Amino acid sequence: MNYSMIRYILFRLFRIMGFLLMLPFFVAIIHKEYDSAESFFLLIVITLVVGILGSVKKPKSTVIYAKEGFAITALAWIFMSMLGAVPFVMTGTIPNYIDALFETISGFTTTGGSILTSVDGIEYSVQFWRTFTHWIGGMGVLVFLIAVIPMVDGYSMHLMRAESPGPVVGKIVPKVKDTAKILYQIYIAITLLEIICLIITGMPIYDAVTITFSTVGTGGFSVNNAGIGGYSIASQVVITVFMALCGVNFTVYYFLINRKPKEAFAVDEVKYYFATMFIAACLISINVYKAGIITDGMLSFHHSLFAVTSVMTTTGFGTLDFDKWPMFSKMILCLLSLVGACAGSTGGGFKFSRAIIVIRNARNELNYLVHPKSVKRVYMDGHTVEGTTVKSVSAYLGLYVVTFMVSCVLVALDNFDFQTTVTSVAATINNIGPGLGMVGPMGNYSEFSVLSKLVLMFDMLAGRLELLPILIFMNPKTWEK
Amino acid sequence: MNYSMIRYILFRLFRIMGFLLMLPFFVAIIHKEYDSAESFFLLIVITLVVGILGSVKKPKSTVIYAKEGFAITALAWIFMSMLGAVPFVMTGTIPNYIDALFETISGFTTTGGSILTSVDGIEYSVQFWRTFTHWIGGMGVLVFLIAVIPMVDGYSMHLMRAESPGPVVGKIVPKVKDTAKILYQIYIAITLLEIICLIITGMPIYDAVTITFSTVGTGGFSVNNAGIGGYSIASQVVITVFMALCGVNFTVYYFLINRKPKEAFAVDEVKYYFATMFIAACLISINVYKAGIITDGMLSFHHSLFAVTSVMTTTGFGTLDFDKWPMFSKMILCLLSLVGACAGSTGGGFKFSRAIIVIRNARNELNYLVHPKSVKRVYMDGHTVEGTTVKSVSAYLGLYVVTFMVSCVLVALDNFDFQTTVTSVAATINNIGPGLGMVGPMGNYSEFSVLSKLVLMFDMLAGRLELLPILIFMNPKTWEK
Repeated sequence: MNYSMIRYILFRLFRIMGFLLMLPFFVAIIHKEYDSAESFFLLIVITLVVGILGSVKKPKSTVIYAKEGFAITALAWIFMSMLGAVPFVMTGTIPNYIDALFETISGFTTTGGSILTSVDGIEYSVQFWRTFTHWIGGMGVLVFLIAVIPMVDGYSMHLMRAESPGPVVGKIVPKVKDTAKILYQIYIAITLLEIICLIITGMPIYDAVTITFSTVGTGGFSVNNAGIGGYSIASQVVITVFMALCGVNFTVYYFLINRKPKEAFAVDEVKYYFATMFIAACLISINVYKAGIITDGMLSFHHSLFAVTSVMTTTGFGTLDFDKWPMFSKMILCLLSLVGACAGSTGGGFKFSRAIIVIRNARNELNYLVHPKSVKRVYMDGHTVEGTTVKSVSAYLGLYVVTFMVSCVLVALDNFDFQTTVTSVAATINNIGPGLGMVGPMGNYSEFSVLSKLVLMFDMLAGRLELLPILIFMNPKTWEK
Repeated sequence: MNYSMIRYILFRLFRIMGFLLMLPFFVAIIHKEYDSAESFFLLIVITLVVGILGSVKKPKSTVIYAKEGFAITALAWIFMSMLGAVPFVMTGTIPNYIDALFETISGFTTTGGSILTSVDGIEYSVQFWRTFTHWIGGMGVLVFLIAVIPMVDGYSMHLMRAESPGPVVGKIVPKVKDTAKILYQIYIAITLLEIICLIITGMPIYDAVTITFSTVGTGGFSVNNAGIGGYSIASQVVITVFMALCGVNFTVYYFLINRKPKEAFAVDEVKYYFATMFIAACLISINVYKAGIITDGMLSFHHSLFAVTSVMTTTGFGTLDFDKWPMFSKMILCLLSLVGACAGSTGGGFKFSRAIIVIRNARNELNYLVHPKSVKRVYMDGHTVEGTTVKSVSAYLGLYVVTFMVSCVLVALDNFDFQTTVTSVAATINNIGPGLGMVGPMGNYSEFSVLSKLVLMFDMLAGRLELLPILIFMNPKTWEK
């Protein structure tokens, strides 16, 4: 283990956090929330001083391997969350530190499940920080770090791989640093575009900015109790489109920008992603319409598409309380949320590409039993998927199921109903936010015990980082010499 | 496809069924249920005539491959169920054929979920047939067929492999026919032993026989509305022991009989099976005791152990309504039922050996990421598990999850609550019987729509035959030339 490199990167992260905290500070100044501004200022100074002092001494060796990559990623997200929770406590918005930590982890991991029973009346600057955590976590703070600090390419790849979602994390361009830059450029462009679109639909600027953070990070925190249901249909349509766009593998945008439509449209998972979205929205809109819950056909499709996009991208926004929809619709939404979005997007869940690999591998196995001479290869995007990838996806599925089950048992100690227990775990491990029952679109996580909150925090982090960094971080073997 | 061999084996199966139907016929005579005796007699004659006429002409070629093995197994179970349902309709016990088919499939697959709202007052002969289906399905009717009809060893192995549960189906002795005989000898010995033990505890002979069929087949049909709760604690203890024994890989008994304790105790899954059983029973008994549901410590452990054994072996017997227990206990029971029993037992579920392979494979993957030079091999019972086995277990997990999800969506169309919907699928695909909510230990499956019943019947068959035969049977590629 290269401890000094771990130390160095973590303190560099503190420096970045210090700069990021300046945004809510400015918002506090603009909205004349001087008490909060003072809190933010104090925190910025401390964070920057600690960050700068800690990273003055550069490590002798910058060599890191996969295990350091995973460990740094896990530690970075834990420290970042612990720091990010401080403003909530300092401003008195969430006096209890455990609750504040839950809210922050929910923010950074773009889960969007809240322990707040009401978000109306929270200060502008705090509300801004709350949604900004979605934006930071969406693309990943280490990817940002890779883009800005000088680091040997081969080593930074370990960080990129540990933080980015999907079964295979590739470089868009030969250099990791450039890949990170391109990802953030696309991310910022999409962010600005959505803010502009939302303002055009008549949304106030402050709302447009914060809701955009929640959308592009596919987080789901809203800035008022009415949620997205309080905005115009036009705004809801814009949000639907941008949620869907942010659930797409960002590599596709790079191909499109560089006029490589062939490569862009060859990505299997994106095709399945949009096809699933459309079919599910049709099924649900018919179901909800026939059940008499929404009496207008077009409106039924609009709200169904919104709900489907919201759960598939694991954003978790709600226009209506889908907990009141028929079980058929709820079950589809519930299962889609498990599959999640595309790899290399800001969305969570198991990921479409993994699901494709699992299904194609199973199909191959079936064919092999019938025709033992058939060649057992899994194809995706026109290429063969490497055997090691298929194996690691299978292992991932196993880890996922085990983590899910253990979490359910621990959360069950709170003795809430079956639906609440199972969907609260599903909603956190997949970074969705709302589940069904007590944690439904109109509910929240405030009633859970401290143990359950800790379990769900673990699930959120494990889900966002796709299990491996957190599990490897906790494995004593990682720390052996 | 060797169609004439498929025909031959299916008609041989009819002959066997004709003989098996003689048992309830004799029960009807003994209990003077002459109307039912007439029905059984008519059915026996028809079945035997059809079976004998159909299998007069022997196939020219007895060559079959894996795909024929899977197809025969799927067809055999479907025809057998269709035939087995007839007595329920003829005797008027279940007038609706779909319902009767549900009950029969539930019987043969040893699920034990019933569409009957009351089982009190059903004729002795019908009740006998109902529980006898558990006994037939427990060890598998094709295994029985292999034991009695002359067939080339290499070919009968395909049938054995398709019908027997577990990731790797091996022969206990060099010859498949002898293996099948040994399995049935052990099975019959256990059956007789339990009947004797139950009679000793004071149970009436008829109850002892029928309850034994339900126990050793790990089915769960009971012969009165009080279920197992109506018998003495001593009887309940006997049932607990025999449920646990029938969830064990039968190879272990062969080792023990042949004085090879070393080999018997080297079987990993059996160790984990009993350890899990004990730990879970302890946790649940503490939970139930603390919740004040059972105020006696010993009794709490007794009922907890009974419930744990019942769900782990996927029998589904109930002494108490565990749907009223705290969520922690219910969740443990629910998850244990997913894991199920050992491979090569009469129990259902995902199987301990598969779970061990999945977990060890995932652990290897984690170690590999930390120490890329570590060798990636999965060990079980002191041997390396072949790569192809690990792959097919992973594929199985994928198929299992997909089947589970699709079933949930279809059953959700009935618009019952989340708990009922999810656990009805879980309870059928794992051949448990009772779930939670409407299908809880005191509930039944009568309220479901025909579509849901068909889906759940599919799940029961798919679960008992471990997905592959049914899925391969439905795959058009199987039937291509």
